[in-house]
This record gives sequence, C-alpha cells and structure tokens, in this order.
Amino acid sequence: MTLHTDATHDPSLRSWVASANVAGCDFPIQNLPFGRFRVAGGAARIGVAIGDQILDLRAAGLIDTDDMNALMAAPPAQRQALRARLSQGLASAAIGSAQQAAWQAALVPQAQAEMLLPCRIGDYTDFYTSVHHATNVGKQFRPDNPLLPNYKWVPIGYHGRASSIGVSGAPVKRPMGQLKAPDAAAPVLAPCKRLDYELELGWFVGQGNAQGESIAIGEAEQHLFGVALFNDWSARDIQGWEYQPLGPFLSKNFASTLSPWVVTLEALAPFRAPFTRPEGDPQPLPYLDSAANRAHGAFSITLEVLLQTERMRAEGMAPVVLSRTDTTRAAYWTPAQLVAHHTVNGCNLQSGDLFGSGTLSGPGADEAGSLLELAVAGQRPVQLPNGEQRSFLEDGDTLTLRGWCERAGAVRIGLGEVSGTIVG
Amino acid sequence: MTLHTDATHDPSLRSWVASANVAGCDFPIQNLPFGRFRVAGGAARIGVAIGDQILDLRAAGLIDTDDMNALMAAPPAQRQALRARLSQGLASAAIGSAQQAAWQAALVPQAQAEMLLPCRIGDYTDFYTSVHHATNVGKQFRPDNPLLPNYKWVPIGYHGRASSIGVSGAPVKRPMGQLKAPDAAAPVLAPCKRLDYELELGWFVGQGNAQGESIAIGEAEQHLFGVALFNDWSARDIQGWEYQPLGPFLSKNFASTLSPWVVTLEALAPFRAPFTRPEGDPQPLPYLDSAANRAHGAFSITLEVLLQTERMRAEGMAPVVLSRTDTTRAAYWTPAQLVAHHTVNGCNLQSGDLFGSGTLSGPGADEAGSLLELAVAGQRPVQLPNGEQRSFLEDGDTLTLRGWCERAGAVRIGLGEVSGTIVG
Repeated sequence: MTLHTDATHDPSLRSWVASANVAGCDFPIQNLPFGRFRVAGGAARIGVAIGDQILDLRAAGLIDTDDMNALMAAPPAQRQALRARLSQGLASAAIGSAQQAAWQAALVPQAQAEMLLPCRIGDYTDFYTSVHHATNVGKQFRPDNPLLPNYKWVPIGYHGRASSIGVSGAPVKRPMGQLKAPDAAAPVLAPCKRLDYELELGWFVGQGNAQGESIAIGEAEQHLFGVALFNDWSARDIQGWEYQPLGPFLSKNFASTLSPWVVTLEALAPFRAPFTRPEGDPQPLPYLDSAANRAHGAFSITLEVLLQTERMRAEGMAPVVLSRTDTTRAAYWTPAQLVAHHTVNGCNLQSGDLFGSGTLSGPGADEAGSLLELAVAGQRPVQLPNGEQRSFLEDGDTLTLRGWCERAGAVRIGLGEVSGTIVG
Repeated sequence: MTLHTDATHDPSLRSWVASANVAGCDFPIQNLPFGRFRVAGGAARIGVAIGDQILDLRAAGLIDTDDMNALMAAPPAQRQALRARLSQGLASAAIGSAQQAAWQAALVPQAQAEMLLPCRIGDYTDFYTSVHHATNVGKQFRPDNPLLPNYKWVPIGYHGRASSIGVSGAPVKRPMGQLKAPDAAAPVLAPCKRLDYELELGWFVGQGNAQGESIAIGEAEQHLFGVALFNDWSARDIQGWEYQPLGPFLSKNFASTLSPWVVTLEALAPFRAPFTRPEGDPQPLPYLDSAANRAHGAFSITLEVLLQTERMRAEGMAPVVLSRTDTTRAAYWTPAQLVAHHTVNGCNLQSGDLFGSGTLSGPGADEAGSLLELAVAGQRPVQLPNGEQRSFLEDGDTLTLRGWCERAGAVRIGLGEVSGTIVG
C-alpha cells in the first residue's frame, strides 16, 4: 500500500510550539488543520491549529486572503507546498530564525479565539455510507425490507440544508414539527419527542468541476480538501411522518453542526486503508472502481460519541462514551467514490461544498452512530452511570463527537471535537 | 376578497416606453419585474423589464447596488416604494420631465442584454404542491399506493441542488447515470433514456429569518419577493433506481433552469385567488391556516409548456403546446403555507433562497406538467403535428415554459419564458 507520506509526516518531528508535542494532542506538527477564527469579534481570519495555538496565516505572511473558499479552490499542489512551509517553519529546527520570531507573533491561543464555520458552504450533500446504519434504520422504518436493492450499487445521497449548518458550540433548539402517532387519525404540531444525533464525517470539496463534466475516480481525491466531524441532528418522529416519498426535510434542516478544524487529505496520508467489499457483495461499477481506490481509497479514523446530561454536569460527572467505531468498519463507500458518483451526471461541485458521510455505524451494537440505533428506537434505553437513561436526547444534554487517527509508526492526529447542547 | 391593489395596477396606465403598451406584452407598466443582466460581457447590473427594454436601476439613480440579494433582503415597504417610483417615472404622464430624459438614457434593449440568474441562490427547496402530479407519478412508482397518507397534511418538500441552477437558454446536457431494467440483475452506467422536464414556479425568498425562529403564516408573504418560471429537468430512469429511501438526487441535480425575470408579489396582487380544499379533504393544521390565506392566499397564473424538436426547427414549424394549466387548479398549498411550513422547525431562510413549487399538473389529462404524465410513462406517446412522437425528450428538443396572469379588469402581466435545448 502506497501511503504518499513525506517529510511532513516524519514521526520524529517536533515543534517549537511546546503544546503540540504533548502526547495525545489533537494538533501535533504532523496534522496542521485549517480553520477560520476571530478574536474579540474582529474580522474572520484563516488559521492553522498547532497544539493549543492558532497560527494566523495572513499575519505570518503565508497567504494574502481571508477567504477559505479561495484557498480550497487552489490546486492541491499549492496546499501541499503551504503544508511543507508550515511543517518546516513550525519545527524545532527553525528555532532562532527570524521567521520563527515573526510566526511566534502570529500565534493566537485557541482559548482566546472564537471559531467560525470553516468556509462558505454552497451546497451540502448527505450520503448514507454505512451499510450497518442503513440496515439498522431500515429495520425500523421498513421491517420487511431493511436494505433496499440499490444500496450495494448506488452510493445513496441526498441534498441537505446549507443555511442551518453551524459550528461546534452552537446550541441546538428542539424543533417543532408535525408528529403523527401510528393510531392517531391526524397529525399534531408539537415539539419533537425523538430528537437524535448522527455521528458523521464532513468531507469538504476543494477544486470544483464545470457543469456537464464528470470527475473520474482516478482524479476524485484531487477535488477533496479535507475532513471535519459532523453532527446531523435528526428529529425521528418528524422524519417518520414526512420522509415519503421525497426524503427527509424538516426532520434534518433545523440544525447540523461541524467541528471547526478541517484536517487535510495530506495529513490523513498515513491513515489510508484498503477498500474491500464483503465476500459475495457486488463489485462497484467501473466508474466507482480503480486499483488505487481498492489499494488505499479508505481512511481509518476512530470516532467516538460522548453524552453529558444536565444532571451529570450538575453532579460534576464527566461525559460518558456512548459508542465508538472506526470508519473502515462503518463506511461502504470511499470519499473518492462519493465524488465520482456525485459528478457522473455532470453535477457541478464548488469549492467549500460539504459531503456528509451519513451516520457512521460499525457492525457491533456498541458501534452505532445514533441513539435510534443504540436504544433500538426506544425499546432498550441506554443506561447512564448515574441511573439516568436515554432513548432520545433531552433538553440540557450535551452531545460531543470526537475523532482521531492512530497507527503504529505514525504520530496520532486528531480531528478535535464537535459539541452541541439541546435547548427546549 | 381584498386585492391590495393600488395606483401601480391602474389598468389605464400607459408607459412612454411604447413597446410596453403593445397588447399581449409580458412586461407592461403594471408588471415591473426584476432581473440581472449584462451587456457585452460587462459587469452584472440590476434591471426592471419594461416592454422590450430594461431600465438599468443604478444608471437611473434608483439604487446604489448591483447585489440583487441585498435588494431582496430589504423590507417589502422599500420594494413597494421603488415600485411606486418606477410606475410614476415610466408612465406617459412623466413625458418631458428631466427624469424621463435620464431614465431614457438608462434603458437597454433586451435584445442586447445577456440575462443572468436573478440572484445568488443559497438554498433551493423543491416542494410537491400539485396533488394531481403526486397522484399521477405515485401511480407509476407505487401503483398500490399512489398518494401517501401524509400528502394532505404535510406540504411535502426536499432540498435540491443550488449550484446547477441556470438561466433560460442554457443548454441541458443529457446526464449519465445508473440505470437498471426491472429484469436486469445489475445496473449499468449509461446516458439517461427517460429525460423529462417539470413545469414549476420558483418563488424567491425576500427577507430571511433567524435560525430557531418560525415565520407565522400571517407574516409569511412578507418574506417572499416574487416568482419566476422554473424547469426542474428530471432523469426518470435514474430517479426510479436511486430515489429510495432518501429521495431524488442525481436524477435532478444535473440541471434546473429559471426564467430571468422575477415578478414581484406586488405585481401579482390583482391575480390573487381564494385557497380552498376539495370537499372531504382535511383542513390544514392551525400553523398552515389563516383567514387571509383562505381568502386570497393563492395566485392564478396560467402556465404553458411548448416543445420544438430539431426536425420541427429545420422544417420551420413553430413550437407546439404540450399542455396548459393554471396554478389555482394545480396547487394544493399556497406560497404562504410553504414559508410557514419550511420554518416551523426553526429552519432559517435567507434572501435569494428558491422554493420550487413542484410540477404543476392540473386535473385534466392535457394539464400535466411533465412528459412522464402526458405520455403515461411511455405507454401513450405524445403525437406531434409533423408525425414525430415523444415519450421523453430527445437530443435537439427545445422545451419552453411560459406563464402569465390575466383577469377581467386588470392588465395582463407575463412571467416571460424559460427555455432549454437538450444536447447529447
């Protein structure tokens, strides 16, 4: 397996930003994710996370724009060159240089920064890449027919709402909607009673394509910028009543939440994995298949869901882990396949567009990426250590997603976290 | 029925732009629709159509922006004041004034202008407001279960693709996609064989709302700017295979096309109509109901579909009318209901967002808004006067939608047209 690693991934590299060298840090010098931030309500700036600091790229003289979409639109080689400069300039070997002094002055403590959405999201597409999630949910909505015949051929996706995507920390207001009990003659308008999260990754489009032109799978990764954590909050009772025949709408578009740091494809290079299909499953059609995709089209990212209820917070209890999985166990399609599929009809992608992975549930019962699955639609409520239980989210609950990559011989890199608290 | 008409609707008003006074003109002085245009590849400008001319609003000293979204975001009272100024300044009574000379110099012949998309569309939602279309299509996709139980309660909608919306005249490339014959073991990638149009209106959002806040039905029209014609091109074979369980995706997002002129809610005032439900149908839930909506929440707009094949063009034959209907016959929900529903969960609308009405099919067989319906999924091909027939669109076909409002005692206003030609 070719890993496309280079000097920026060297595990022996350390940074003169001391906090980046602490074991378990999400943002060591091998990571260098991009984000947008502001300080004290000022203008939005583009920065790179290093340890507990942000390097302000314009203040450091590395770029001349505050427009992340413009940065995303650039050819990957430009991004890679910037990564190489950042890696060299932040490395311990640069200590004492004039550049180090200038960059030191361009550091902003993360604790002092307000993080913003990473970019302007033109269109947001949500996929459905976990066959386990599709099967688990399918059982509840269509007991006779959980996994539809198209699933193993088509990377199922649909368009979502871009305007209501927020950044980690934004409160999530419990939505109102039409609810209809199975035995009721008519629906009622009421607050959602089955509010849920969805553990997802959000892949950002880098370079776009012209309308009418497809992106071949061999070129697909040249059009991806990087990845963040994504929570696709879902109102299951609204969804059950509204979703046929055209798909989810108000059950999803009240809010979605992104983590603020976008980890680039370059940073993920050591964590690539083969793409394989279970024995007996059909092989992808040729436009979704390539030797490179089979060899290393997947990414191994560990994902974790944590819950802290209001009472836990009041009792000083730390958040509890609800589930944990890894993308290689959960995803039936690779990011490159999503790009090739999305554009095979000539649909034009634009820089900053977001692809949700869909809920990333692994095969195990403790690997499910939603409460709907973990609590089996309320039949088996999740027991919390303080005696509380949850079938769905309650007001005051704080739900957090975390993600990281680790592998023998590589330095662990993190995606940070995305967090949101339900308000009534 | 209160019509909210004023001096700008006076049927006796005539303009010093002579072409605006020609009978049957889409853009008389009572209309005054907004659009964006440029001349000879120059910068985009905002204009108002009057007869066969465009009044360049900035050149006329009426606005100081080229950003239509900013104009759309303004409170309706500002738009109404601008309409009153335009009506007065373009009226015959203004002949000889210094202002007339200045405005005369700000006119651009439509024949010399390139029309652009009216605004930046952040999010595009497609609704499904014709119960006749839902029933016709439902019969084909789900013979046992054509109209789902939620239809008469929920204004069904889903999110569509904003990036691939173009303006009238843009060619439409036949998309590739996964097609699966009912008896085939596996799908194949091939050009769409069942390419269709959908006759829709596109409603533009004016003022938005904050995330977490709903727009009550009584306020809903304050958040609408105006309407254009909209063709939601559809690949029926791709749709049939991909659409379950999350809705249409690649079957729709390769292209949609808008007419360039947005007719404002003010211009539509004389063409309002009562909103009624067929005997025996449930009344809308309270958040979708109001006395004003019942009295005049609907709009009466005549809609027409025309087809000209490549051979017809070569033979010098004019386009043939495929169908004609009126929104009051086709739409089961009013625009105000769509706004109230879309935001009842706190979803935030932004200025320039687009609501597709869904295919506006009336009850009659000759009132259907798609070929899928007119030709009954290919079972009864449409016969053209030159001996050709169509079950679906073929390369070289030009499909045009037209719309207009007329009523005794009011001057006819037009929506213009939206046109597109299929290329292979």
